[in-house]
Amino acid sequence: MNRSMIINLLGRVLQIEGLLMFLPCLVALCYQEHEGFYYLFVAAGTLFVGGMMSMVKPKSHVFYLKEGCIATALSWVLLSVAGCIPFILTGEIPNFEDALFETVSGFTTTGSSILSDVEALSYCSLAWRSFTHWIGGMGVLVFLLAVIPLSGGANFNLMKAESPGPSVGKLVPKVKSTAQLLYVIYFGITVLEFLLLLLGRMSVFDAMTTAFGTAGTGGFGIKNDSIGSYSPYIQWVVTVFMILFGVNFNAYYYILYRKVRKAFQLEEVRGYFLIIGASVAMITYDLFSHAIRLTDALRTAAFQVGSIITTTGFSTADFDTWSSSSKTILVMLMFCGACAGSTGGGIKVSRIILLIKTVLKEFNSFIHPKSIKKIKVDDKAVEHEVVRSTNVYIMTYIFLFSISVLLISLEGHDTTTNFTAVAATLNNIGPGLSMVGPTQNFGFLNAFSKIVLVFDMLAGRLELFPLLILFHPSIWKELFAQRKSERMNSNRYKEKK
Amino acid sequence: MNRSMIINLLGRVLQIEGLLMFLPCLVALCYQEHEGFYYLFVAAGTLFVGGMMSMVKPKSHVFYLKEGCIATALSWVLLSVAGCIPFILTGEIPNFEDALFETVSGFTTTGSSILSDVEALSYCSLAWRSFTHWIGGMGVLVFLLAVIPLSGGANFNLMKAESPGPSVGKLVPKVKSTAQLLYVIYFGITVLEFLLLLLGRMSVFDAMTTAFGTAGTGGFGIKNDSIGSYSPYIQWVVTVFMILFGVNFNAYYYILYRKVRKAFQLEEVRGYFLIIGASVAMITYDLFSHAIRLTDALRTAAFQVGSIITTTGFSTADFDTWSSSSKTILVMLMFCGACAGSTGGGIKVSRIILLIKTVLKEFNSFIHPKSIKKIKVDDKAVEHEVVRSTNVYIMTYIFLFSISVLLISLEGHDTTTNFTAVAATLNNIGPGLSMVGPTQNFGFLNAFSKIVLVFDMLAGRLELFPLLILFHPSIWKELFAQRKSERMNSNRYKEKK
Repeated sequence: MNRSMIINLLGRVLQIEGLLMFLPCLVALCYQEHEGFYYLFVAAGTLFVGGMMSMVKPKSHVFYLKEGCIATALSWVLLSVAGCIPFILTGEIPNFEDALFETVSGFTTTGSSILSDVEALSYCSLAWRSFTHWIGGMGVLVFLLAVIPLSGGANFNLMKAESPGPSVGKLVPKVKSTAQLLYVIYFGITVLEFLLLLLGRMSVFDAMTTAFGTAGTGGFGIKNDSIGSYSPYIQWVVTVFMILFGVNFNAYYYILYRKVRKAFQLEEVRGYFLIIGASVAMITYDLFSHAIRLTDALRTAAFQVGSIITTTGFSTADFDTWSSSSKTILVMLMFCGACAGSTGGGIKVSRIILLIKTVLKEFNSFIHPKSIKKIKVDDKAVEHEVVRSTNVYIMTYIFLFSISVLLISLEGHDTTTNFTAVAATLNNIGPGLSMVGPTQNFGFLNAFSKIVLVFDMLAGRLELFPLLILFHPSIWKELFAQRKSERMNSNRYKEKK
Repeated sequence: MNRSMIINLLGRVLQIEGLLMFLPCLVALCYQEHEGFYYLFVAAGTLFVGGMMSMVKPKSHVFYLKEGCIATALSWVLLSVAGCIPFILTGEIPNFEDALFETVSGFTTTGSSILSDVEALSYCSLAWRSFTHWIGGMGVLVFLLAVIPLSGGANFNLMKAESPGPSVGKLVPKVKSTAQLLYVIYFGITVLEFLLLLLGRMSVFDAMTTAFGTAGTGGFGIKNDSIGSYSPYIQWVVTVFMILFGVNFNAYYYILYRKVRKAFQLEEVRGYFLIIGASVAMITYDLFSHAIRLTDALRTAAFQVGSIITTTGFSTADFDTWSSSSKTILVMLMFCGACAGSTGGGIKVSRIILLIKTVLKEFNSFIHPKSIKKIKVDDKAVEHEVVRSTNVYIMTYIFLFSISVLLISLEGHDTTTNFTAVAATLNNIGPGLSMVGPTQNFGFLNAFSKIVLVFDMLAGRLELFPLLILFHPSIWKELFAQRKSERMNSNRYKEKK
C-alpha cells in the first residue's frame, strides 16, 4: 500500500479546497458579511493542514487501482468534513451531522437539504453551498490531475476511481490533457449559462449560484421554492442546461473538434434524449389532461424530467401532488440517471443500454442457440469485463439500496418516504416523494438516518466500489501491517547506526 | 419448430386437467351442490378437446429447449383459460378477467384474490380454487413427465422450462424417475400436514384445502380472515409446513436416502433458515416492543415470515398496520423468495447467495487483482453459464417489474399499492400492502391492470424466459413459416399422386 502517496494526495486536495474557499470570502466582502471571517479562518486552516500533509513525499510511484480508490474515497470524506466546518462556525447549521449532510449533499451534487428556510442563510454560505456542487460535479481529483503532474499509473487510476460510468473515456491519450479538456468544457458551458441567465434579468449572485447548481447537476436552490418563482425564460434556460450537463462529455469533445455527426451517433446520447423525449411527452399529456395550459404543462414537465434524469433536483412544481403514473415515471428516471462521463448521477444511461442489450442477446441465444454474437455499443464490441462489472455494479447497488431502506425504516416513516429518501440520495438527485418531497426537506430525520444517507450520497457519487472497499478488513490490515514494517525498518536502521 | 409435438403435449395437459377436475365434482357430490354439474361439464369438455389434440402424432422427436419453453408457456395459458370456465358458468365470478385472474393466481400459487367474500363460494369452487395451488405448485408438466414416457430431449427440456431455480436439479439420472420422486415427496408431506391439521380438530374440508394451499405455497384461504380465526396449534402447523414446502426438495431426497447430514449441508437450505431466523427475531422483537405478548408475537411473526418468504400468502394478522421496519423486512422477503427446487416463488435464495458471492468475488479481485478464484456453492465451482444466466434473470426481472409498475400506475392508485401489487404477483405471493394489503383484495383494479398482473403471475411462476420468448417475433415467424412449408410439402405430395 502506497501510504505516503495517499497522504500526499489528500494534502493537495485539502490545499485546493482551501483555495476554493476564498470564493465565499469574496462574496462576504461584496455583501459585507461578518460570516466571511469564518470562511477565511477555515480556508487558512485547511491550507495549513493540507500543506503539512503534502510535505510527506511519496516513497514510491507505484500506484494501483486499489490505492486510487482509497485515495479518492478518503479525499471525498476529508473534503466534506473540512467543508462543513464553516456552516457550524457561523452557527447557520449548528449540528455536526446536519452540516455534514448538507456539505456531502453539496459535493456529491445531490442537493438534498436539511434546511427548511434556505433564504435565511448568509450570501457567503449560499455561495459556498452552491459552489460545492460545481466542485463535486466534475470531481476534485480530476481537477488535481489537470493542474499537477502525476506518474506511475496514479493519474489513470485516480481518474478511473472518480469518473462516473462503466468505462473511463479518455478523450485524448494523456490523462492530464483529458482532465484539462474536461474542465475547459465544463467551465465554458457554465459561463454560457451564467450569461444567458443574466440576459433573463437574474441578479449576478442568483445567476452564479444557479449556474453552479445546474453545472454540477446538484440542485441546491437559493430560494425556498427552488426555481419556481423565476420567469418562464429562466426556467427554460435552466431546463436546457440541466439536460446539457447530463450529456456525455465525449459528445462535446467531438463537437469541439468539429465531428458533430459523431457526437450525435453516440448511442448513449441518443438513448438519453429518447428517454427525455418520451417522458416529457407522457407527463405533458398527463398534466394537460388535468386542465393545465399546454405551454405551462410542457415547461413544467420538461423542467422536472430534466431535473430528475440528470439528478439535479431543482423543482418548479410540487410533483408529489402529480398523478400516480407521472410520479412513477419520475421514480424510474431517478434510477436511470444521466449519461456516463457527465456530471449527473444515477445508474447511467450507458449501463441501462448495456443491460438491455445483454438481456436481448440472451433471448436471441435462447432462440438461436448456435449463433454467437457479441454485444456492441457504438459499433464496437463490448469487452466481457465491462459487461461483468456492470452486472456486479447493479447487484451491489441493489444490496446497498435494500440495506439502506431497511436502516431508514427503523425510524418508522412511511414506505414511500423511506424508499424515495434512499433513491434520492443514492442517485444524487435531491428531493424524493412524500415526507422528503420537493417542498419538504431532510431535516426531520434522526442523526442515524442522516449518517446512512450521507454514506449513500458518497457511495452514489463514487459509484459504490471506491467507498465500499474502505470497509474491507484487508485494506486496514494492509495499512496497519505496512506501518509496522516501516517502524521495524526504521528501528533496524537506528540499530545499524 | 416441432409443432405437432407441442400440440400433442398441450392435449395431454388438458386431459390431465379434465381428470383433476373430478375432485370438485366429488366435493359437490358430498355437499349436494348443483354447481358440481358445471364442473362435470367442463371436465368432460376439457377431456374431449384434450383427446382431440393429443391425437396429433408428433412427426419428429427432436425437441429443443426453445420448444420446451413454448410448450410450457402455452400449457399454462391453456390450463388457466380452461380452469376459469367453471367459475364463470356457476356465476360465482361472472367476469372473464376476474375468473382468469383468480385461476391464474391459483395455478401460479400466487393466492391474490379478487373476491371480497370468499365464504360465499360453493364448496366445490373452494376446493377447485385450492386444488389449483396444489397442481401448480409442483407443476403440471412435471406431473405429465411422471406418468408418460417421453423421449428425444423433450422430458429434460420440459422439466428445465417448468422447474424453478437457476439450475435443474435432477435427483436421479432419469427424468421420469425424478418427476415421480418429486411427486411422491410432495404428496407425502401434503398428507402429513392434512393429518396433523385433522389432529387439531379442523374439519376434513378445511384441512384438505389448507393443505393444498400450503403445499403449493399458494395462499388461497377459505375464510375471509385467511388463517386468523384458527387455533394457535393450527397456525403453528401451517407455519412449519409453509417453511418445509419452501425447502429445496433435494434436501428431502437426501433425507429419504438417509443422508441427513448432506441435507443440512446444502448452502441454500442453510441460508434459507438463516434468513427466516433473523427475520422472525427482528419482527418478534418489534411486535413485542409494541406490547404484544411474547408467545403471540413469536407465533404471528413466524407465521407471517414463513408465509411471505415461501410466497404462500396466508395471513393471521394485518401486517399493513405493522411498523415501518417490519413492513420493510416483509417487502424484502417478498423479493427473496424460497429455495430453488421448492414450490415457492420469488427470486430464490440460491440466486441471492450466488449474487452475493459474485459481488464478494469482485471485491476480492479488486483488492487482490492477481488472485483467480472461482465461485463455489456446496463446494462445487459454479459454471460461468449459471452466473451469467442468473445476472440476466435479475435484469429481466427488474425491467419487467418497472414496466408493470408503470402500467399499473396508469390507474392512479398510490405508489405503495402499485409497487406491492406487482411485487406480490410477480413473486407469486398474494397480498401486498396498502390497497392490496392482507385484509383487502385485487377486485377494485380495472381489467387492464388485472391482465398485466395475470401476465406477471405467469411470468413469475415460469421464471420469465419461457413466457417472454412467446413475444419474440421470430417464434411466430417460425411457426408460420413451418405451416407454410408443411402446406407446400403436402401440395407437392398431392401433385405427385
